Amino acid sequence: MSTETAASAAEKITGANALAAAKPTNQKSSKKSKKQDAQQFLLKTPKGTKDWFDKDMVIRDAIFGSLTSLFKRHGGVTIDTPVFELREILTGKYGEDSKLIYNLEDQGGELTSLRYDLTVPFARFVAMNSISSIKRYHIAKVYRRDQPAMTKGRMREFYQCDIDIAGNYDSMVPDSEILSIVCEGLTNLGINEFKVKLNHRKILDGIFEACGVKEEYVRKVSSAVDKLDKLPWEAVKKEMVQEKDQPEEVADKIGEFVKVKGSIRETLSFLKSSELLANNASAQKGIEEMTTLADYVDAFGIGEKISFDLSLARGLDYYTGLIYEAVTEGSAPPENADELKSKAQKNSKDKEVDDASEYVGIGSIAAGGRYDNLVGMFSNGKSIPCVGISFGVERIFSIIKARAAKQLDKIGSAHTQVYVMAFGGGEGWNGFLKERMAVTNQLWQEGVNAEYLYKGKANIRKQFDAAEKTGAKVAVILGKEEYPAGQIRLKVLGQGAESDEGELIKAENLVEAVKAKLDSLNQDGLDDITRLIRAI
Amino acid sequence: MSTETAASAAEKITGANALAAAKPTNQKSSKKSKKQDAQQFLLKTPKGTKDWFDKDMVIRDAIFGSLTSLFKRHGGVTIDTPVFELREILTGKYGEDSKLIYNLEDQGGELTSLRYDLTVPFARFVAMNSISSIKRYHIAKVYRRDQPAMTKGRMREFYQCDIDIAGNYDSMVPDSEILSIVCEGLTNLGINEFKVKLNHRKILDGIFEACGVKEEYVRKVSSAVDKLDKLPWEAVKKEMVQEKDQPEEVADKIGEFVKVKGSIRETLSFLKSSELLANNASAQKGIEEMTTLADYVDAFGIGEKISFDLSLARGLDYYTGLIYEAVTEGSAPPENADELKSKAQKNSKDKEVDDASEYVGIGSIAAGGRYDNLVGMFSNGKSIPCVGISFGVERIFSIIKARAAKQLDKIGSAHTQVYVMAFGGGEGWNGFLKERMAVTNQLWQEGVNAEYLYKGKANIRKQFDAAEKTGAKVAVILGKEEYPAGQIRLKVLGQGAESDEGELIKAENLVEAVKAKLDSLNQDGLDDITRLIRAI
Repeated sequence: MSTETAASAAEKITGANALAAAKPTNQKSSKKSKKQDAQQFLLKTPKGTKDWFDKDMVIRDAIFGSLTSLFKRHGGVTIDTPVFELREILTGKYGEDSKLIYNLEDQGGELTSLRYDLTVPFARFVAMNSISSIKRYHIAKVYRRDQPAMTKGRMREFYQCDIDIAGNYDSMVPDSEILSIVCEGLTNLGINEFKVKLNHRKILDGIFEACGVKEEYVRKVSSAVDKLDKLPWEAVKKEMVQEKDQPEEVADKIGEFVKVKGSIRETLSFLKSSELLANNASAQKGIEEMTTLADYVDAFGIGEKISFDLSLARGLDYYTGLIYEAVTEGSAPPENADELKSKAQKNSKDKEVDDASEYVGIGSIAAGGRYDNLVGMFSNGKSIPCVGISFGVERIFSIIKARAAKQLDKIGSAHTQVYVMAFGGGEGWNGFLKERMAVTNQLWQEGVNAEYLYKGKANIRKQFDAAEKTGAKVAVILGKEEYPAGQIRLKVLGQGAESDEGELIKAENLVEAVKAKLDSLNQDGLDDITRLIRAI
Repeated sequence: MSTETAASAAEKITGANALAAAKPTNQKSSKKSKKQDAQQFLLKTPKGTKDWFDKDMVIRDAIFGSLTSLFKRHGGVTIDTPVFELREILTGKYGEDSKLIYNLEDQGGELTSLRYDLTVPFARFVAMNSISSIKRYHIAKVYRRDQPAMTKGRMREFYQCDIDIAGNYDSMVPDSEILSIVCEGLTNLGINEFKVKLNHRKILDGIFEACGVKEEYVRKVSSAVDKLDKLPWEAVKKEMVQEKDQPEEVADKIGEFVKVKGSIRETLSFLKSSELLANNASAQKGIEEMTTLADYVDAFGIGEKISFDLSLARGLDYYTGLIYEAVTEGSAPPENADELKSKAQKNSKDKEVDDASEYVGIGSIAAGGRYDNLVGMFSNGKSIPCVGISFGVERIFSIIKARAAKQLDKIGSAHTQVYVMAFGGGEGWNGFLKERMAVTNQLWQEGVNAEYLYKGKANIRKQFDAAEKTGAKVAVILGKEEYPAGQIRLKVLGQGAESDEGELIKAENLVEAVKAKLDSLNQDGLDDITRLIRAI
């Protein structure tokens, strides 16, 4: 967050990035070249960011479309907040990770930072507008000045897809709907092999309290426990004892609990039989809520997807109740777990980013929890209970892309349905450019996605090639003799049927005939990518 | 762009915004309150930014949806670039307006800035990926550290909706398609009263050259001419003579040209008869291109929307050919034009923002042009010709909102179709919460948008009220006696028919019956907001 090195570093980077000589281009309009002398740029996007395009963009758009339908299906409304917030809104919300916040330069006395997540801006929005209840979804970019690991899908700029339910409702009712949204959302994206791990902050805090962890150590011990899905118990215990200053017998007692996982009712049965927790108010409150939840999970038919796992802790400070994380099954721990662990130990001393705790979320494809006090931090204590989930779209993207790799070749990036061509040649042949424009325009006016080649004359081969690249399903062909006689040829594309003659229709029936042809080719009404995602 | 005041201003603003005393809230979980002591924040978004929500968000989403369909209809593919770019990418592209660029703090030696438009990042993308042709659309936020004027829809963070065609094609073919996209896009949004003003940079530069303007004054004189739609000729002439150092006879000669406007062929006929331009190569090249364009505009049937207006100049440096701007007809010049003019004169001396030149675009709802050299600035001269348009969504939003004000009351922000309720009471009545969950879940699984009240027990009145807020069209009612007997009641909502009994169906036929009912209520297949926009 310091700016002290800015000035000198600025000079350095500018020098390094702009190559030695500013070399003028051979621009035709020499008049303007003084201002526009071309430099040889180091052409790249900023560290940890990337462009999205082509097939990747088509897949990501399909994911957004699927999640948007999901959120609307559950009554969600969307909002849009600025990409940067007043810095003080973000301060003190993310614990140690606050150092990852991107600051903008001071803008005339106003200090602002790029948003770190969508949750804190949402809480600010609810408080600022005195909203008492809302079910809002938000698909947008967030920013974390982290060490990027692109191969693992960890970027500095990335999308979150969130839905949150704010309002005073009966215990665990919105929470269970969020869990059903997670399951429904992943299933609709063709991801069936996942588990939703649950825990409850009140139970976890109760366990720590009952085992003798002092209040000021609770979050630290919690973060050690959270690594149990990646590290063996012995390593976690060592961290508690050596780094988090816990007596060995406290760690051992904790170990009795956090190794437990199972169905909600199995883990509840273990917790209810614990004498140590019997008199712990926090744990008992959590147990009561989880008992209620068990019924609702049954009503939604998602019990088999749920694992009540006492080792789940989640990093963020603001959770107050149920917490959860959807993980793909069979996602292996990172190959360099040991190396990261030792780096994490080193870093935790000089207060750098804790890489090990960061990658705990790597197998995670959606995560969230209940946060009942966050809105209150912005509204002088008048809090609105909230619960929500964030889908990690980059991770979901990687899974879908890997599975769909082969089939993707068959899918175009454009949504073109029809390609309008001219066929002719010889004396006096003008290429029917204006005629292609007029016919294409007729299709546009009726809502048909159509293109034509931006050349006055082009042979039929080039037009077919161009059509194929767009993924168009139907060719509309204006023949040199046919078109002036009021006839147009329709031909189905992409079925190796190019030697086929197609069918001749009356020009006045064009739109109708094209629509009928498209309907006959798309019986299920799905677009290609949606069909692909459902099929894999 | 200077950061010198950052440190002192930082302290000031923090002191001012955080109110005097940090006042602890009455949080229930006192354990966590140490870290989370609530401050009284000045709850707002940064200057020139705002939250979008409720009806406004529904309208804006509908505009984005309409434009996205438009872009796809014309074969567009979308890309996503980072919200910030390396600073040197943006440098030297926006002339005087470069001072409006938002810088981020130095990130470990990397200097970055928020994007100012979508065009320069697009050119960087095309160059970086060595793309030879692409038709890309991009709907995203851009950032300008301008004086916000919210009532006029001028913000520091706002959306642009761009489509650009890059590639070597026949002259004026992509250009004419962009013009047809503007007309089709606005018409689809229910905006019929608009004109697309055209001009050509080569003609304009030719006129200035032929009238005796020296090369180094061309862009300055051009920016004076661009104000002719807001200021009388006398004021523009005065600016040329007094501020832009032009001899009076030069200004008078220019005046002979820039007052001319009409259909493409009318203005062309004037230009072709000009002896002054007869030997000017630049002007003749532009005249030739405009002659070609006239035919294509006819082919697309948009001639009556076009005005070839020799006063249109557009501010940005990078245009090299056709330029255009769609303006709503009857949009009055701002009431305080004189005041702004004098402010502009004053400011132009101390190099502040030129307010008068800024609001030239205020009646403008879409604008763009051809820029053949921009990609070359990033690729050592290997340029790709480009032409594009940017729809100003904030301005279009204001027009639609003003027209739709009354009807908007009838439209919900949610997309809920069905509300699931329970009806009962008396001894042993449990509110059917789990039953409502299970039935709602059944609807979700079949793709129906459905909600229910998150309360264990609620009287029927409260459930109807909640249903009405969501805009649901159909109520599914689980009656205390009916549901256990395998029957469910369907009722149409929102037609003052709440005393009506609805109809009783078999529980096993629920999904089918609900879908049939929804279909019968939505014959045209449009959602409410789309229907509204088309109707106004």
